[in-house]
Amino acid sequence: MSATLGQTEVYSLLSLSLACFGILANTFHGDGEPLIASIAFSGLAFSICYALVRWLGNAFMQRGFKGRDLCKLKKTEIPETMGAVAALVYLFILVIFIPWPFYKDIVAATSGGGNRDVMKELEEVETGRLLHRFPHNKLASYLSAILSLQSIVLLGIGDDMFDIRWRHKVLIPAVAAIPMLIVYFVDFGVTQMVVPKPLRPYLGELFDLGWLYYAYMALLSIFSSNSINILAGINGIEVAQSLVIAVLIVLNDILYLSPFAPYPHPATDSHLFSLYLLLPFIGVSLALLMHNWYPARVFVGDTYCYFAGMVFAVDGILGHFSKTLILLLLPQGFNFVYSAPQLFKLVPCPRHRLPHFNARTGLLEASRVEFKKPLSLPIAASLKLLHRLRLLDVETDEKGQVVSSSNFTILNLWLVWFGPMREDRLALGLLGFQTAVGLLGLFVRHRMALLVFTADNW
Amino acid sequence: MSATLGQTEVYSLLSLSLACFGILANTFHGDGEPLIASIAFSGLAFSICYALVRWLGNAFMQRGFKGRDLCKLKKTEIPETMGAVAALVYLFILVIFIPWPFYKDIVAATSGGGNRDVMKELEEVETGRLLHRFPHNKLASYLSAILSLQSIVLLGIGDDMFDIRWRHKVLIPAVAAIPMLIVYFVDFGVTQMVVPKPLRPYLGELFDLGWLYYAYMALLSIFSSNSINILAGINGIEVAQSLVIAVLIVLNDILYLSPFAPYPHPATDSHLFSLYLLLPFIGVSLALLMHNWYPARVFVGDTYCYFAGMVFAVDGILGHFSKTLILLLLPQGFNFVYSAPQLFKLVPCPRHRLPHFNARTGLLEASRVEFKKPLSLPIAASLKLLHRLRLLDVETDEKGQVVSSSNFTILNLWLVWFGPMREDRLALGLLGFQTAVGLLGLFVRHRMALLVFTADNW
Repeated sequence: MSATLGQTEVYSLLSLSLACFGILANTFHGDGEPLIASIAFSGLAFSICYALVRWLGNAFMQRGFKGRDLCKLKKTEIPETMGAVAALVYLFILVIFIPWPFYKDIVAATSGGGNRDVMKELEEVETGRLLHRFPHNKLASYLSAILSLQSIVLLGIGDDMFDIRWRHKVLIPAVAAIPMLIVYFVDFGVTQMVVPKPLRPYLGELFDLGWLYYAYMALLSIFSSNSINILAGINGIEVAQSLVIAVLIVLNDILYLSPFAPYPHPATDSHLFSLYLLLPFIGVSLALLMHNWYPARVFVGDTYCYFAGMVFAVDGILGHFSKTLILLLLPQGFNFVYSAPQLFKLVPCPRHRLPHFNARTGLLEASRVEFKKPLSLPIAASLKLLHRLRLLDVETDEKGQVVSSSNFTILNLWLVWFGPMREDRLALGLLGFQTAVGLLGLFVRHRMALLVFTADNW
Repeated sequence: MSATLGQTEVYSLLSLSLACFGILANTFHGDGEPLIASIAFSGLAFSICYALVRWLGNAFMQRGFKGRDLCKLKKTEIPETMGAVAALVYLFILVIFIPWPFYKDIVAATSGGGNRDVMKELEEVETGRLLHRFPHNKLASYLSAILSLQSIVLLGIGDDMFDIRWRHKVLIPAVAAIPMLIVYFVDFGVTQMVVPKPLRPYLGELFDLGWLYYAYMALLSIFSSNSINILAGINGIEVAQSLVIAVLIVLNDILYLSPFAPYPHPATDSHLFSLYLLLPFIGVSLALLMHNWYPARVFVGDTYCYFAGMVFAVDGILGHFSKTLILLLLPQGFNFVYSAPQLFKLVPCPRHRLPHFNARTGLLEASRVEFKKPLSLPIAASLKLLHRLRLLDVETDEKGQVVSSSNFTILNLWLVWFGPMREDRLALGLLGFQTAVGLLGLFVRHRMALLVFTADNW
């Protein structure tokens, strides 16, 4: 891969960056227009990430971060773990962005940066109540989000470097979630859940989950990160599925902003917070995808999958829409449940389960696992049932013994359903499916949720 | 190096850890006894770091993090960048510790974790003023410290991996300081400086530095990190000098706590904050030093130097004693100024400037730089002057031309003064010197500062 940018690329990135700087320069009035600023920062994030991934590829290869693409005729080595670059750019942008959401508080309370406490007391005296109290808790929750994301990047890089064992890896997102959980505990501590109508006679309107709520948040981080990490293996799928989820959450957020909702909707602030986290994520992910899409010139590494999953988990938890998030992760959830028999060794699990590249046709086919030892009766029966339901492709010998099956991933299942196809067609098919499921999920959530909850989510 | 712990080590670490857990379990009353908890956490940090450095050494070597010790007879390869492990353990402990300083606020305000805002309003009604207002700004400053430290670790690991160029490296601490500076800007924004008495007629009591204050903080981070990074090269010196500085700051902090000061001294909270950051640092650094002291079994890498320098900078800035910090960094500052002629290429700078190992005696000697081209007249004259002042060892030929000199580092100067000595004697000598200078500095600061300032630092 060439390590320099072409002329067109340079001009495009430069003009995008200049436009973004121009927009940013015009945000210093009113409330600082944080949403506009966030969009501009996302454009910058895109440019920086696009250029850095190109420039740093060779350095990564030299340092041993490289891998071979198994689904290609020519299995040349390309840089691995480039998702770390995207994550670092993202974190940098998120930090630089901090003053914008607080612009109105800084300017209104102090005319730009004196000692806020002193000013507050003056105003208390003058008006008898607290105007302009600085939203410290908003800042703390924003900082805790960045802390958890930095942690996942640190741990993800460690994982990509040292190949941590599978059963330890799974817990990485829970460790990275600790800063967020602790700040949540110290500063907010709301552990109540709105109870669905049918259960209200027994539990009341709000049910305090107590420490279970923290367990729930940790589990959500684990689920979100790992479910993205196992829906992987073909060019672009890790980044593109994350982009689909991010865009769907953005859609959901927009529903809470004017002109779609009465302003200020009680949840407006949470959903603005969510946008501030997601827009730059979309920026860096798009840039990364342009290098990672078929035919890939870089791999993104586990770091990216963990990082993306953590962005969603942090966003959902601190934005208070974790149930909606789970809805949007349904395809990943299905893939996890579907993979479980192999992940938990109920049936043999080969080292690689990614689709099989047929060098003659240039197409991907469902990869298969051979059962050298006969399977136990209930498992063989279950596999045959799955075959009947068209959820698996099972091969039996003349005695009716199961001798092989397609591997248990949604990628292979897609190939079982629709036959061999080129790598990018497979990715596009799955992404279309994921988008459809997600849109349906959002529709259900907004149209049907009132049947079980008395009011929309706050 | 064996990757397992000996039996004595296992039992010592286990009993230390158990004792620490016991202490922690007894902190859940009163104000949560954060200082006691911090000491216990530091013990845990020591144990974890000690064990992890041993366990992970081989994994680091396999991944290419290794180096040869040039000052030994047998130049075997040992793990490099192990300071990253210490830094990660430190960050983890710092995050887990967060609830303790806020224990009394959590418990007092809400009986343990409900919605604080609701409770606060109740109390406003009852008492007419705000009791138990949660110290959000303390939390934000604590979080911003952790953010900047995480950033320096991320960037430091990047540097150790990719060998960033010297002129870019220097700026790494400034980039890592950005989160702290931005939170400082958003949440505190105090940019005034107490003016020394003689200047008061011109500047007033407080002088607002404005954005210069941010430049000052960034420069302090750069100075602190890089000055530690260039006082390096022999076993243990990076970690041990950091330990000396940390212990001196702790001494200074203790002067503000009872029974040495009236409680509550206005600066007590800042200095408690400083202790919370430093005690676990001392824990991990001690553990690292036990592996890094002569004869070293691991190297610490640039990551550690950056990290240590950043701990001090963050501590000094957020604890409001940055001038005292500069005082404690005087030996490093001297080394930097002394190195400047070579760093800025006024005289030739060889690739390595660490002392020369004499294989016959087993002792270190001052390493020398040969001047192949004759030096310009003013520079030659300056070198001869330095020689007269016993600040350099210059060799001249029969024509009086300067042909070589000792390298411009404090380590070589020490060897010029006291002759060849074993590596650990050299390290001990310098550390003793550093301790003496530091103690003198603290004495001057506390006894003499009142001559130029009207009151002690707040």
